[in-house]
Amino acid sequence: MLKINENYMKLPGSYLFSDIARKVAAFSAAHPDRKIIRLGIGDVTQPLAPSVIAALHRAVDDQASAATFHGYGPEQGYDFLRRQIAETHYLRRGVKLEPDEIFVGDGAKSDTGNIGDIFDPNAVVAVCDPVYPVYVDTNAMSGRAGNYQPSSGRWDRLIYLPCTAENQFCPEIPGPSAPAPDLIYLCYPNNPTGAAITAQALRGWVDYARRVGAVILYDAAYEAYITEDLPHSIFEVDGARECAIEFCSFSKLAGFTGMRLGYTVIPKELVVGGVKLSTLWNRRQTTKFNGASYVTQRAGEAVFSERGQEEIRQTIAYYQENARVIRAGLLQMGLTVYGGTNAPYLWLKTPNVLSSWGLFDYLLEKANVVGTPGSGFGPCGEGYFRLTAFGTHENTRLAMERLQNIF
Amino acid sequence: MLKINENYMKLPGSYLFSDIARKVAAFSAAHPDRKIIRLGIGDVTQPLAPSVIAALHRAVDDQASAATFHGYGPEQGYDFLRRQIAETHYLRRGVKLEPDEIFVGDGAKSDTGNIGDIFDPNAVVAVCDPVYPVYVDTNAMSGRAGNYQPSSGRWDRLIYLPCTAENQFCPEIPGPSAPAPDLIYLCYPNNPTGAAITAQALRGWVDYARRVGAVILYDAAYEAYITEDLPHSIFEVDGARECAIEFCSFSKLAGFTGMRLGYTVIPKELVVGGVKLSTLWNRRQTTKFNGASYVTQRAGEAVFSERGQEEIRQTIAYYQENARVIRAGLLQMGLTVYGGTNAPYLWLKTPNVLSSWGLFDYLLEKANVVGTPGSGFGPCGEGYFRLTAFGTHENTRLAMERLQNIF
Repeated sequence: MLKINENYMKLPGSYLFSDIARKVAAFSAAHPDRKIIRLGIGDVTQPLAPSVIAALHRAVDDQASAATFHGYGPEQGYDFLRRQIAETHYLRRGVKLEPDEIFVGDGAKSDTGNIGDIFDPNAVVAVCDPVYPVYVDTNAMSGRAGNYQPSSGRWDRLIYLPCTAENQFCPEIPGPSAPAPDLIYLCYPNNPTGAAITAQALRGWVDYARRVGAVILYDAAYEAYITEDLPHSIFEVDGARECAIEFCSFSKLAGFTGMRLGYTVIPKELVVGGVKLSTLWNRRQTTKFNGASYVTQRAGEAVFSERGQEEIRQTIAYYQENARVIRAGLLQMGLTVYGGTNAPYLWLKTPNVLSSWGLFDYLLEKANVVGTPGSGFGPCGEGYFRLTAFGTHENTRLAMERLQNIF
Repeated sequence: MLKINENYMKLPGSYLFSDIARKVAAFSAAHPDRKIIRLGIGDVTQPLAPSVIAALHRAVDDQASAATFHGYGPEQGYDFLRRQIAETHYLRRGVKLEPDEIFVGDGAKSDTGNIGDIFDPNAVVAVCDPVYPVYVDTNAMSGRAGNYQPSSGRWDRLIYLPCTAENQFCPEIPGPSAPAPDLIYLCYPNNPTGAAITAQALRGWVDYARRVGAVILYDAAYEAYITEDLPHSIFEVDGARECAIEFCSFSKLAGFTGMRLGYTVIPKELVVGGVKLSTLWNRRQTTKFNGASYVTQRAGEAVFSERGQEEIRQTIAYYQENARVIRAGLLQMGLTVYGGTNAPYLWLKTPNVLSSWGLFDYLLEKANVVGTPGSGFGPCGEGYFRLTAFGTHENTRLAMERLQNIF
């Protein structure tokens, strides 16, 4: 008798951003005259860079002629792109990677979601709290998370690493008597708190992972937003090649949210039980994936060209200015806010003992501004609210004016 | 202590097409002067249709301006594309689908590879023999296939459905005393044998699946190559909405192998254990996938425009002519060949008691023609060899001339 994957039935409600979308759609339908400003989901608003657009047109033209047509590409990505990521993105930070340690995919969400395939279904997983829901939900789907406990809002087989104002949203390393995780998800600059991690703190995690034999799954999707002297890649830390996988994305780097491009780095030294994890991921990708679009990979190549780099720096500066405006505005209103300096996310302490969803409803109703309730990212996110810097200047300023009126 | 997914270690060797690519690369390196003709992997050679190219350029221009920029799209695909697939592709065959029963993805390989996520890890799986390796390998990775038995070339938890010349490569329905599978993978027109399935035979499978409570995973990636009066979709058969999931692709339909676009149809009546499978797949996709590229989805929309349909019909006719040439040529050489009439694949009986890999080496060496060894698709493929119709006219004719010289 056919059964479904029963782990799916353990998932409470649906995906956070789908819930928000439904609430906003309902509000819009009820109030068609209100102009809603979306600072919720981390989607960009600025167009692709001119040199990226030019590369896309050229690649489309390649597909118009048999002599230059590209069919199936390598599942791991084209060499031209893997090489450029190694030589441009990593080498300038002193990180030496072989191109075949870089696996190009269709985005960090897919890769962070699918990476669990290559690990034992009983592996013990540690996640930050609050956390990007994909890490938790995909482990719930595979059974690693155990059962959801509505009373605590937590899964009973996950190790939670609280990220609070007290620890600057950078979790403490478990003590020697605490159970050691097998897999540790870290995301810095952090989604949702906007916190960054210092080289020293990251070194602590790398040392810990090596000591207990864990693998760190490091999501560096927001590294382009770092303004201070902080590590952009976990591989800037000695020893990380033996214990870490890094996920990167073109989405926030170059506005590729609608284009779908990212990459995952698995160094050859990363071996578990005598097996290279890069070999397992390669097997996974060659069997269940057929490569990212050729056209999109050419666009990715253009991002790392000299002109492309100059252009995307301007767009990133545009969003960084939004982060500055939101941060300064909220502080001026006497609110408590974190993040925004090295990340496109701002983490607002909800005022007046409002719950996260309470503030969501209040802002949607009174200011027609959409943010993301912190509790959607985990119990430690309760009492917080995420705002993103990806809006337009105009909307970001308008949102701040509206907030000024209600706070 | 972290462990890997041990099922990966049970996989013998690597993915079939990677093996072939390596052999061909080695031969090329040793004989740089020889012009190799590839009729092995099912990759297309003709450029995208003019109206598809035009749509791609327009969509790229959309991404160049904030007013028309598209960031994250719906994980399930844009409504414009889902609606058009329902209204153009399905309705003309009398199949009524709601757009939200159609899930747009980045290709049938990903979707057929990932669909297993939503089912119980102990589900009993039936596959044809020979078979597209993705169905087997992905079930091996999840543990459903059990252990690989080198002596038989089979996995000990899979039910194999032999497809032989005797049954016209259309498997017989298991008898009442045979163990019933929970999941049944069927692919028609078939990869690798090139066989088609009649409405009557398909009805037999649908009735069987409903009787035993199984779900049919129906891969219709090659339906555009049907020339006779045969079902293009399993949903042309009464009752299929209660027992079947269908996978379709733009790869062979419109040359999108390098563009990455496909879709999966899960009717709302398809319920297992009281749960709609469409709900589970939606949860899987919203959690582990972030939608197909906006630009590519606009290209998919153009495929179903009136002009697009006319243009892709010409390209399909081009490949069908190759199939005719290969089939006629092989028959003229006195060889036994199947398929090619309703499919872009031809299934050649190896002559002179050669093994499949024996013929592969012989053709590579003597004719510099690359095909796919039938044994790579399963034990019943031994003694067969797959050729594809996706080459150019010139190369296809040249390959036939070279074969004429050695047979």
